[in-house]
Amino acid sequence: MGISIMRRAQEKGAISLGVHDLREQGMGKHRQVDDTPCGGGQGMVLRPEPLFAALEKVHTEKSRVILTSPAGKRFDQATAHRLCSEEHIIFISGHYEGVDQRVIDHWVDEELSLGDYVLTNGAIAAVVMMDSIVRLLPGVLGDEMSAVEESFGPTGLLEAPQYTKPAEFQGMAVPEVLMGGNHAKIAQWRAQQSLERTRRMRPDLLPEAR
Amino acid sequence: MGISIMRRAQEKGAISLGVHDLREQGMGKHRQVDDTPCGGGQGMVLRPEPLFAALEKVHTEKSRVILTSPAGKRFDQATAHRLCSEEHIIFISGHYEGVDQRVIDHWVDEELSLGDYVLTNGAIAAVVMMDSIVRLLPGVLGDEMSAVEESFGPTGLLEAPQYTKPAEFQGMAVPEVLMGGNHAKIAQWRAQQSLERTRRMRPDLLPEAR
Repeated sequence: MGISIMRRAQEKGAISLGVHDLREQGMGKHRQVDDTPCGGGQGMVLRPEPLFAALEKVHTEKSRVILTSPAGKRFDQATAHRLCSEEHIIFISGHYEGVDQRVIDHWVDEELSLGDYVLTNGAIAAVVMMDSIVRLLPGVLGDEMSAVEESFGPTGLLEAPQYTKPAEFQGMAVPEVLMGGNHAKIAQWRAQQSLERTRRMRPDLLPEAR
Repeated sequence: MGISIMRRAQEKGAISLGVHDLREQGMGKHRQVDDTPCGGGQGMVLRPEPLFAALEKVHTEKSRVILTSPAGKRFDQATAHRLCSEEHIIFISGHYEGVDQRVIDHWVDEELSLGDYVLTNGAIAAVVMMDSIVRLLPGVLGDEMSAVEESFGPTGLLEAPQYTKPAEFQGMAVPEVLMGGNHAKIAQWRAQQSLERTRRMRPDLLPEAR
């Protein structure tokens, strides 16, 4: 969390981050935090005691508790926008492990999934969600970035292809329209490319598919 | 990439990881790697020269080049399974930036998106994909984990709730069926919970929705 946008956001005072090691609330000599699943099965499950103790320590009435889990609702840009107005977010991150359902029932406000794939490390998922949320906070991205047109922006379509200098490189030229300075034509070209690209890569995002 | 599963996989010799700093191929005194977009617009775009130079250095005929991009196809568990048989994967990670389309046209085998949200840091997206792919390589997860029933497993449904000890905690009990030792009943309960959970959280994953 010391990298990139997280550091910038902390330096600007836009966020403050804390990490709480569950092992501090671990049980016994080995500070155990997990145990085998009831009813049998592979893997380990985080026990309720350490999580209850940790959450009792950090939870306030302004907290929103999120569990990153492939079995949650899909995190998306709308969720990022909604969460960036929260005052205090607590992410519970399992590592290889599931979480005892009693913790979820008692504490968790929402279970969110990065996507339909399985990770070993829920902390990575939390970092992704934080990055996506924090960049939306006022003043975190510099002026040069804050108004970037982006995929999932106002149109809900994918972004058009981007080009920069040089105008020609190894025989490959930037499309002529982008070099012409005719802003209406450029906007039209981009809208068309954006639509074509969305049709090819993500037809589910097209207005007629929604 | 020194953490968790990545370290374990490297120590076991299952993978070897390399990071290539584009700035080594940067241009001019300031080792510039990006420039403003042709046709106007906010943000910066990675120039073709440094990426071509970097890719010419590391690319072999066994390489598969992936660009992490919110405008790509959605990365999912099936993609992770497909990619874990690749011999050499190159991830191109932008940081705040887009990538000149000529690089994509010439080098990139597939553009993959973590999900429908925007990140500042493509490197985080690459780490997530790596985690998801690497855990599927033989011998990377220990025996204790390798056969975990998981969301998006054979049934394509979300996992049933998990419980561990203690059997009762602050008045909340583990469901009786899980404590009974009747494996047929436990399997039946889990299948039912898995279906109910999927119906509630992710109806799009149900067989009738596909």
